[in-house]
Amino acid sequence: MPMQRLRSFKILCPFPLPWRSPVLSSRGGSSVPFVGIPQSSSRIRSLNGSVPDVPFMAREFYTSSASVAKQEETGPVVEQIQMLKAVEDVHGGVIVEMEESMDSDSFVPLLRDSLSKWRLMGKRGVWIKLSIENAHLVASAVEEGFRYHHAEPDYLMLVHWLPRTTDTLPANASHRVGIGAFVMNDKKEVLVVQEKYGKFKDIGLWKLPTGVVNEGEDIHLAAIREVKEETGVETEFVEILAFRQTHNAFFTKSDLFFVCMLKPRSSYIQKQNLEIDAAQWMPIEEYSAQPFMLKNEHFKFVASICQARTDTAKEYRGFAAIPTTTGSGRLTHLYCNTDKLKLTL
Amino acid sequence: MPMQRLRSFKILCPFPLPWRSPVLSSRGGSSVPFVGIPQSSSRIRSLNGSVPDVPFMAREFYTSSASVAKQEETGPVVEQIQMLKAVEDVHGGVIVEMEESMDSDSFVPLLRDSLSKWRLMGKRGVWIKLSIENAHLVASAVEEGFRYHHAEPDYLMLVHWLPRTTDTLPANASHRVGIGAFVMNDKKEVLVVQEKYGKFKDIGLWKLPTGVVNEGEDIHLAAIREVKEETGVETEFVEILAFRQTHNAFFTKSDLFFVCMLKPRSSYIQKQNLEIDAAQWMPIEEYSAQPFMLKNEHFKFVASICQARTDTAKEYRGFAAIPTTTGSGRLTHLYCNTDKLKLTL
Repeated sequence: MPMQRLRSFKILCPFPLPWRSPVLSSRGGSSVPFVGIPQSSSRIRSLNGSVPDVPFMAREFYTSSASVAKQEETGPVVEQIQMLKAVEDVHGGVIVEMEESMDSDSFVPLLRDSLSKWRLMGKRGVWIKLSIENAHLVASAVEEGFRYHHAEPDYLMLVHWLPRTTDTLPANASHRVGIGAFVMNDKKEVLVVQEKYGKFKDIGLWKLPTGVVNEGEDIHLAAIREVKEETGVETEFVEILAFRQTHNAFFTKSDLFFVCMLKPRSSYIQKQNLEIDAAQWMPIEEYSAQPFMLKNEHFKFVASICQARTDTAKEYRGFAAIPTTTGSGRLTHLYCNTDKLKLTL
Repeated sequence: MPMQRLRSFKILCPFPLPWRSPVLSSRGGSSVPFVGIPQSSSRIRSLNGSVPDVPFMAREFYTSSASVAKQEETGPVVEQIQMLKAVEDVHGGVIVEMEESMDSDSFVPLLRDSLSKWRLMGKRGVWIKLSIENAHLVASAVEEGFRYHHAEPDYLMLVHWLPRTTDTLPANASHRVGIGAFVMNDKKEVLVVQEKYGKFKDIGLWKLPTGVVNEGEDIHLAAIREVKEETGVETEFVEILAFRQTHNAFFTKSDLFFVCMLKPRSSYIQKQNLEIDAAQWMPIEEYSAQPFMLKNEHFKFVASICQARTDTAKEYRGFAAIPTTTGSGRLTHLYCNTDKLKLTL
């Protein structure tokens, strides 16, 4: 069990996927085997007071019945013990998904019994995913020692580290990702916009289309989408020319902003009215010569990179997107400099 | 007010910081001016039943007293109305920070009165940051129409969009960031490790040191830190040679993994015992010739990029880290190809 591995949440391979959603994971490696036995067969005779394997079921929630031996004068008899349904993760922990509503009076004793059993079983991180319909159970979970891990609009994930060792749980997502799109046509005109809102509105700055990369969206596809949304222009991705990392960009989170070069597939501009005040094709010299661009270090630098990429003499090259497959068989993209690279795949 | 701008949480500048912690923000632009008046001066006579400005205080929490006119036979008299203390954000919303504990019976009426006032004032996104000590208030906030936005170990951020328009609130952080460190000495030996845990343990793979970039940590500094932690070798950052984006890497979050080239400043290896089983300097040909490397597309590709970078004939170039300053004056790093680029800063 990679306990220390998680101390600082190490990545264990050059192309790591160490924390796939454990519910979806099929990898083993836990001290307790995954036992998906039906409710009816969960009555197990356990000898010597030892704790039996507990049936773990994924996704649907209802209480399970495990059994422990209880020595009485008449000999060992089976006593029912209610537990929260859980599924094992690949790090020796368990995940409970509370999707259906439950009242606190039923939840608390179940949680306490489950925690005591999981402790005996040597479980480590115990995760509880509470749908927002179960917001009334948050306080009870916290009282039992859980803390928040992350939240999305419709659920809160709480976690409780059972061992007395240092908490080796993974950190939350740390970055937001954005793109800026550099689209230039054969006449060396760059596609620029003026926005209706924000700090550049008042100075009338003509700027590159920009936007946020959605969760699960490829960077190069996000650039194509944003250009289409803001200007109506069809494009194809060429290269990432540069990127910037900024901290404390959004609450405590960091920000990665990728400057993407795109090749136009159409020229007619149909601007998006909600956010864009104006859009046009502007000679790149005019774009770079805007007063704000000349006095702002960042804008000036990026403009110089964009111009260098279009100057055959300077031979500036960024990173292209190479489709490839991970060790686990999923399609992904590797961004690298393909100019001088002899691909050996 | 950039309402539409936020519909898909647009970035409004090539180097966006659109969502600094609003509490720390000093930018204006809201329909209601920031009024930081002391508690004692919060008694305001309001005419014509209009809603007065409400004093917004940042950070500390206690209830405030605003006033509205109430016409009675004896003429207008002032009626106290308790409200939650809040600070305006730069998007026409307000943020309440509940750091001190409060009971639900006191919280609910305060929240309801505050929401009705904020509606009248045309407020948009209402944020409530609940410390984990106030977990018992989560259910009440949800009952009043709030949903989860994000959570960190010690707090939960809830949000409620008051207008009848589409929710234009920003998304949560979407990516985790990791690094792999390619460190080669003058003898063309690459620094490799064998890990104690994980799927590569059994096949005895010699791999690059890897790790996760912490929130607020620069990518190139994270690479230097990880190499030092795992092997004891001092390095300096050279370039990012390539990076990969993977989806659903951690719950629903995406993953960005950067392959960093570092130059060794020391050669003596003192491995970290918790995670690393062995570490050594290995001839790059041996590293690339490992059976797993030859049959795994990703590993093979990255190894070929690393070799291309060390092959003067191939002239492979990645992205160096250029320190620069944002428009808001914060130091940051732009990663770009500096080989052919004539910096014009």
